[in-house]
Amino acid sequence: MDRDSDIALMRLALEQAEAAVAAGEVPIGAVLVDADGRVVARAHNLVERLKDPTAHAEMLVIREAARLLDAKRLPGCSLYVTLEPCAMCATAASFARLARVVFGAEDPKGGGVVHGARVFTQTTCHWRCETIGGIEAEASADLLRAFFRARRS
Amino acid sequence: MDRDSDIALMRLALEQAEAAVAAGEVPIGAVLVDADGRVVARAHNLVERLKDPTAHAEMLVIREAARLLDAKRLPGCSLYVTLEPCAMCATAASFARLARVVFGAEDPKGGGVVHGARVFTQTTCHWRCETIGGIEAEASADLLRAFFRARRS
Repeated sequence: MDRDSDIALMRLALEQAEAAVAAGEVPIGAVLVDADGRVVARAHNLVERLKDPTAHAEMLVIREAARLLDAKRLPGCSLYVTLEPCAMCATAASFARLARVVFGAEDPKGGGVVHGARVFTQTTCHWRCETIGGIEAEASADLLRAFFRARRS
Repeated sequence: MDRDSDIALMRLALEQAEAAVAAGEVPIGAVLVDADGRVVARAHNLVERLKDPTAHAEMLVIREAARLLDAKRLPGCSLYVTLEPCAMCATAASFARLARVVFGAEDPKGGGVVHGARVFTQTTCHWRCETIGGIEAEASADLLRAFFRARRS
């Protein structure tokens, strides 16, 4: 996938994050695409509505894509997500054998790819997804900042 | 919870792991109990049947307990699981605000509590579950060894 495609797909993930705001959810969106860049699944965070602590955007698109493709592994597929995945989601991406994890803003407080657990660097990680950060990072961070500012006030 | 209670509850998790063998799933079982030690949910690994890479026993009991208790957080609850949780499941336990994570055998190859990502030790982990390992560890490890030995032959 070239950089223009990455940006276009990240914008689809950002649309999901924007939809999350309207739904009262933390604005993080994701899309999962197949090896040809076709969108298989899209989702935003649904922790509040589902009252499910695991209902992060990444988990939802991975599970939905596995259901649609009728496969527990999704080789060649790529995950686009507006924020650096946490350790839960990064580990799920590894279990799903995703080729790439492309994210927007870094998350120093809760990330698990380039912060904290750094899941893909561990010897306990048996499938290392290629990771690319910083795609449309400002748009992603702006959405999150506006959401938390509004919630505090 | 005293040690005898921990052993009794781990035996319920082991029953789930045994049921997993019969279902052709990797034998890992879990139960989730409330603050009084009452069982809220029990599950075993269902990755094969659900074709869901995230369908670990721990994820399933956390999600089921959240559904039954109609809450995205499960304070005071404890997770009993036959094998050291991976980074995905340990992070989910933290998000669910579980009080305790009690596990059987350690998992040097894939664990995320006392191996690899060591999720609860990271500064990105904002809720540290108390962790206790080695409860009925031999019974748990025996089940896994027998399962993989049978699968190889």
